[in-house]
Amino acid sequence: MIGVLRIGHRPYRDKRITTHVALVARAFGAQAIWIDCADDRIEANINRVTRKFGGDFKIKSGVEWKEFIHKWKRNSGTVVHLTMYGMPLDKMSSKLKKEKDLLLVVGAEKVPHELYRLADYNLSVSNQPHSEIAALAICLDRLTGGKWIDKEFGGKIKIISSEREKIVKDMGRSG
Amino acid sequence: MIGVLRIGHRPYRDKRITTHVALVARAFGAQAIWIDCADDRIEANINRVTRKFGGDFKIKSGVEWKEFIHKWKRNSGTVVHLTMYGMPLDKMSSKLKKEKDLLLVVGAEKVPHELYRLADYNLSVSNQPHSEIAALAICLDRLTGGKWIDKEFGGKIKIISSEREKIVKDMGRSG
Repeated sequence: MIGVLRIGHRPYRDKRITTHVALVARAFGAQAIWIDCADDRIEANINRVTRKFGGDFKIKSGVEWKEFIHKWKRNSGTVVHLTMYGMPLDKMSSKLKKEKDLLLVVGAEKVPHELYRLADYNLSVSNQPHSEIAALAICLDRLTGGKWIDKEFGGKIKIISSEREKIVKDMGRSG
Repeated sequence: MIGVLRIGHRPYRDKRITTHVALVARAFGAQAIWIDCADDRIEANINRVTRKFGGDFKIKSGVEWKEFIHKWKRNSGTVVHLTMYGMPLDKMSSKLKKEKDLLLVVGAEKVPHELYRLADYNLSVSNQPHSEIAALAICLDRLTGGKWIDKEFGGKIKIISSEREKIVKDMGRSG
C-alpha cells in the first residue's frame, strides 16, 4: 500500500493546500493520508468526496508524526520524504515500486530537520522550489506507473469525459 | 512556448494556491504565467524565486482573460483548458506537443462556462476531483516529455541533491 503523511499542517493557514494534498493522494493511487494536526473539517471534506466519487480512501488527522514513522518502519514499511533537497526520484522509482508499504511524507513550509534522518529516503521531484502537491502527484504517477489513468473508483457519481460539456453521471449506487 | 493562464484568482483566498500554480509552471517548463486579477505580492514572490533560482520565467497579473485568449488564438496559438470534465490529456498529448504556442488555462474553484467553448481543447488529468496544481504539473510533464528533470536554470543559487542534507550552492553569479 502507499500512504501519505502530511506534517506541519496548520488548520487555518494550510487548509486549502492540505486539502489538495489529500485529494491528490486519493486521485493518484494512495490508499490513505494521515495528518499531524487534528482537523475535523478537512476529514469531513475528504470523506464527502470519497462517499460521492468512490473508492476506499482513508483520512485521519491528529497523528503524532514521529511515532507514526517509527511504527511504519517497525512494520517493515519504507519511509520516503519528498523534498527539493533530496536525491532525484526518477533514479529510485524502480527500486521503490518493489516495496510493499510505502509512506510518502510531505511537509508544509518548514520541516523538522529530524525528518531527513528518520526517512529511509529523501527524494526530490526537481531541485527547484515548487509545490508539495505537484511533487506528490508526480511521485505517485511514477510509483504507480501512471495507473491512476484507468482506475475505476466505483462512485455514486462519475464524470464522463467530454469535449465541451460537464457530464456527471449518476451511477445509482447508494452509499 | 508554453504559457499558463490562471483565471478566477482571488488575492486573499487563493494566494498560496496560485503561488503553487506559478512555481509549478516555472519548475516544469512553462515560460510565463498570466493571472486575471491584479496581485503585486504574488508577482514579487515569483520574481524573487526566479532571480534567485534562475531562468527567465515571466509573470503578469491583472490580465483580462477573455481578451487574452482571443489574442492568443488570433496569433495562431492553441488554448487548452485543464478540467476534470475534459477529454483525457494522455490521448491528446502527442498532438499537442507539435503545437508552437500552447496556453494552458487553469481555473480556481468556479470557472465561467464560456471557457469550455473558447478553449480549443478541454482536457482532464483524471476525472476525479483533485488539484489544478497537480493537473498542471502532470500536463507539463507529459507535454515536455519529462524534460524538467534535466533543465538547468543557471541561478545564483542551486540545490545539490543529497541523501540526508540540505545543500545550497552559491553559484557566484550576480543578478
